[in-house]
Amino acid sequence: MTDRDHAGADMHALIAGLFPICRSITGNGVRRTLDILGQHVPLEVHEVPSGTPVFDWIVPREWNVRDAYIQSADGRRVVDFRQSNLHVVNYSLPVRARMSLAALRPHLFTRPDWPEVVPYRTSYYKETWGFCLSQRQLENLAEGEYEVVIDSSLEPGALTYGEYHLPGEIDDEVLFTCHICHPSLANDNLSAVAVAVWLARTLAARPGRRYSYRFLFIPGTIGSITWLARNEGSVARIKHGVVLAGLGAGEAFTYKKSRRGDAEIDRVVSHTLSHASRPFSVADFSPYGYDERQFCSPGFNLPVGCLMRTPNGQYREYHTSADDLQFVAPALLAESLETCVRIVDVLERNGRYVNTSPKCEPQLGRRGLYRSLGGEMDAASRELAMLWVLNLSDGGPALLDIAERSGLPFSAIAAAADDLTSHGLLKPVTDLT
Amino acid sequence: MTDRDHAGADMHALIAGLFPICRSITGNGVRRTLDILGQHVPLEVHEVPSGTPVFDWIVPREWNVRDAYIQSADGRRVVDFRQSNLHVVNYSLPVRARMSLAALRPHLFTRPDWPEVVPYRTSYYKETWGFCLSQRQLENLAEGEYEVVIDSSLEPGALTYGEYHLPGEIDDEVLFTCHICHPSLANDNLSAVAVAVWLARTLAARPGRRYSYRFLFIPGTIGSITWLARNEGSVARIKHGVVLAGLGAGEAFTYKKSRRGDAEIDRVVSHTLSHASRPFSVADFSPYGYDERQFCSPGFNLPVGCLMRTPNGQYREYHTSADDLQFVAPALLAESLETCVRIVDVLERNGRYVNTSPKCEPQLGRRGLYRSLGGEMDAASRELAMLWVLNLSDGGPALLDIAERSGLPFSAIAAAADDLTSHGLLKPVTDLT
Amino acid sequence: MTDRDHAGADMHALIAGLFPICRSITGNGVRRTLDILGQHVPLEVHEVPSGTPVFDWIVPREWNVRDAYIQSADGRRVVDFRQSNLHVVNYSLPVRARMSLAALRPHLFTRPDWPEVVPYRTSYYKETWGFCLSQRQLENLAEGEYEVVIDSSLEPGALTYGEYHLPGEIDDEVLFTCHICHPSLANDNLSAVAVAVWLARTLAARPGRRYSYRFLFIPGTIGSITWLARNEGSVARIKHGVVLAGLGAGEAFTYKKSRRGDAEIDRVVSHTLSHASRPFSVADFSPYGYDERQFCSPGFNLPVGCLMRTPNGQYREYHTSADDLQFVAPALLAESLETCVRIVDVLERNGRYVNTSPKCEPQLGRRGLYRSLGGEMDAASRELAMLWVLNLSDGGPALLDIAERSGLPFSAIAAAADDLTSHGLLKPVTDLT
Repeated sequence: MTDRDHAGADMHALIAGLFPICRSITGNGVRRTLDILGQHVPLEVHEVPSGTPVFDWIVPREWNVRDAYIQSADGRRVVDFRQSNLHVVNYSLPVRARMSLAALRPHLFTRPDWPEVVPYRTSYYKETWGFCLSQRQLENLAEGEYEVVIDSSLEPGALTYGEYHLPGEIDDEVLFTCHICHPSLANDNLSAVAVAVWLARTLAARPGRRYSYRFLFIPGTIGSITWLARNEGSVARIKHGVVLAGLGAGEAFTYKKSRRGDAEIDRVVSHTLSHASRPFSVADFSPYGYDERQFCSPGFNLPVGCLMRTPNGQYREYHTSADDLQFVAPALLAESLETCVRIVDVLERNGRYVNTSPKCEPQLGRRGLYRSLGGEMDAASRELAMLWVLNLSDGGPALLDIAERSGLPFSAIAAAADDLTSHGLLKPVTDLT
Repeated sequence: MTDRDHAGADMHALIAGLFPICRSITGNGVRRTLDILGQHVPLEVHEVPSGTPVFDWIVPREWNVRDAYIQSADGRRVVDFRQSNLHVVNYSLPVRARMSLAALRPHLFTRPDWPEVVPYRTSYYKETWGFCLSQRQLENLAEGEYEVVIDSSLEPGALTYGEYHLPGEIDDEVLFTCHICHPSLANDNLSAVAVAVWLARTLAARPGRRYSYRFLFIPGTIGSITWLARNEGSVARIKHGVVLAGLGAGEAFTYKKSRRGDAEIDRVVSHTLSHASRPFSVADFSPYGYDERQFCSPGFNLPVGCLMRTPNGQYREYHTSADDLQFVAPALLAESLETCVRIVDVLERNGRYVNTSPKCEPQLGRRGLYRSLGGEMDAASRELAMLWVLNLSDGGPALLDIAERSGLPFSAIAAAADDLTSHGLLKPVTDLT
Repeated sequence: MTDRDHAGADMHALIAGLFPICRSITGNGVRRTLDILGQHVPLEVHEVPSGTPVFDWIVPREWNVRDAYIQSADGRRVVDFRQSNLHVVNYSLPVRARMSLAALRPHLFTRPDWPEVVPYRTSYYKETWGFCLSQRQLENLAEGEYEVVIDSSLEPGALTYGEYHLPGEIDDEVLFTCHICHPSLANDNLSAVAVAVWLARTLAARPGRRYSYRFLFIPGTIGSITWLARNEGSVARIKHGVVLAGLGAGEAFTYKKSRRGDAEIDRVVSHTLSHASRPFSVADFSPYGYDERQFCSPGFNLPVGCLMRTPNGQYREYHTSADDLQFVAPALLAESLETCVRIVDVLERNGRYVNTSPKCEPQLGRRGLYRSLGGEMDAASRELAMLWVLNLSDGGPALLDIAERSGLPFSAIAAAADDLTSHGLLKPVTDLT
């Protein structure tokens, strides 16, 4: 097995361990999840009390559920939380009642268009309760009385999230964030949680980092709002950011650009995907999706995009019980991790240089940097990369600009900059872009 | 009949009443036309004496024609002004002579490529005379002597035009202008005259208007030059303008942009047409066409475009007797009027707002502005419109910018802005864009 | 024969005369070439001593070759410089030895993919020697001993180049440059040398020139570096420049833009090619190619592009013995010359004007500049050109801008500007663009 195979298998194993836990935007499922992640990276876990005002919102009461079922007259659980935590509408109020199927029906949710799967539903901000089940299950329910139990609690407690800060040479930060509020859904979003953990481990193991890195494992929406409210004074440190979501299924990547649209992170991710010899797409920002909505709200307008494979809502398994452990592939997880590492590599290396010999080309041949025998049909791409770097490095364009204009991969441009720097033909501009 | 059907029928009836009148750039035909229009809107009629200098031009002598014909030896009128005023070349000098067909021929104009129709010709600035007839008529003329009569006069008089000013809250004006110099041609341009009159009536009937509106009913070229010369000091009030032409025939609209190319009116009309689920085209400015040539001359460079259906010269009936009452359709007139009203609606409502809660999204659900039960597949477009307005309203983009960037119709964006404003989440920026 | 035919034939004859000479980046072949060119234009010939530092480079020793061959045991020359100077690797060190075929092989270069042709190879900056031959020749060489002779010298001498300066009304210069270092290769680059000579003659014969013109006949790379080093103080005079290369073969032109990408010369050449009703392509700058690499190095960044037909490396005959006198066509040379002349015409005539009657259109008809009889279907393009010039000439756009925006050829726009100027409706802005 290659390192990449190992990483894919390990990430899938982590997902498998996290899958059964009933997570929500608050509660013990989140705590248990962060405990497990903490075995892989040294997470700092934060508890923010219910009732804490966070901008226009208030941290909600904590929800926990122990059991939930619908039991028929013969004592059989026809819908059972123990089989899948998707069966209970997330944030359901407690209920314990006997009622007819007719009375129960408004509380039952199915996917008539795909009768085999259980949908995923939440009701965070409206007090109600409900069950999700497959259309098949619903059709098999006989008329009659049912015992309906949701043994949940919605009480003052806390919102829990995890954070991992990895210092670098400078305080400027790269943010990676993912939502951890979904219960038994593998691609959305345990896949991204696993990739974020392995990315953090990979970067922590590196000898040197220019940027500092911050990883957030937070409940969607209220988690990013809470984090931003508590860190308002220091968010200006975030120079680049990526929301990670749905990274275990779907061949092609989709990157959704930040609100700015031309932030360095937008260009870095687009460049990285465009040189990966795979179909991919780059979408413009829209204020609907994941936590980029909060990071890109006008009061912050941070350079934060969103890296996904198939986007939310665009695959059939989205928000159903079919988003299970079989749906996410170790090889795709590994490729997602590699892509994140490449993005980081570009961010770390991007910078401006000046050609120290800007009048005409310097004589590369004399320095062993050039083919000695002229007249060949094509310039080798290594030489072409050097010529591009020399030609454009007037202190204006950074290496990424040069990669974009030349059409060459950033890695070739960076290698050329190294070669030229070591021969004294190039020197870095000390103030970072 | 719907209101729309009524409007279409009424505009067509107005066109039918105006059709027989022999109009030109000056003369009693214009006066009679403005009299009739004055029955629908309170027009101010201006008379500018012949000989008045207007920039590089001089108001020409007034032309009137009472009768014109070519009579064969047997006393039959083979070409007769009383049958169609297109038969006389517009601005022909008076003539009363007997001449052979050979001598007459240089004064006869036909359309050999379409032998059934009478072409429309003018000779405003070269003193000559002539007749237009169908190629069929010409072929039927026997050799021999003809009595040739044009009972016209070209004498000092005045250039006549009509103007209607509708005040609004601010002095900034929206200009709608159309040419009234064409004789019996229905689409070019009685169609646009009728749409302008009905648009004026519609706006006059509104309770509130932000902008003031100015409607011009003027002869082409010399009319706009004369108006600009007489109103040079106040044209800066014109913030948006549209030349209306040929609005009764042809399924698709064509909008020709102002010389500026990115004026607000250019974007407003383009947006309006693009959300009308109909084929349409937007053309770049060129200095050939209608009176936008004068309004967009470099000394004025006003933000004035031109709204047409099939453009001048691009339909077969253009400038022929086939541009008749059957050629213009009441339903198309009604749709043209609606389009103008929608353009006005966007102009009236466009403006900048600021999100009063710019850090993260405000909690829409608490205010009843959001679906209560999460997990659904698609965001409703109403919510999406609110999210776009909130996300982009940082005082920079106006509602039209938001509509353009989001791809949503302006009406949805404006409705979202209303909802958000009523909940205190948005407030208008007081200085207008 | 037309003038054009004559020019094509004359240029081809010049090429035929130059073809046999063994040129290199230095040496007597260059001197003999410049002597011949000097019979057509009064060239100034410069000799720069070996060892002269020129920026990062040093003028190399002078290379001359008198004879070279490989002789088999039976006394037959199996490879013979006297048959083609391509047979010796350009800049080969002298050698005189007997050696086995096995020992000789590393010094033999062929084109296995095209067995009939002799490739062209150089080794300017690495001391070695070699022979080029066809794959067929190589295959026919029997094992055994060969006498190997290259009677060359590599000694202190000079780098030679030719320059022709043609003064104009202003000191601002247009540069045309071509490389003269290739031996018996017709398209690359005797074709461009011939076109440059004929262009210089054409411009010298003109009564008036606004710009000054400079023609360089220089060895590739080291020649332009040497020229730039010696003229560093005056290169700012170069306002437009074109490297000429490969102008005798290939139907379509390719223009490679300057590093700036939007320099006036880039737009002038693109416009000229786009109105020539021929396929053509315009390529972005890249730092690989001809001497534009040096002129566009970041320390100079001059507005210098490159005009070619089929670009270097993109035709099969490139850098082989198949690039011979049959490969270049007189008609294509003549068309290349014409294209250069048209480019010069645009540069000479481009400038800004102001409409002296900017408020509304001036009355063209009164001045005989307009059709007298209205109502025709299309505006004649001459009138349209006048309307465009009047409409856009507010002191901002130059004639080329107007040509680009209108889609009309520059010649039509310039003719309209002449007409309008002679009627006092336009006057030139005196400071040149």
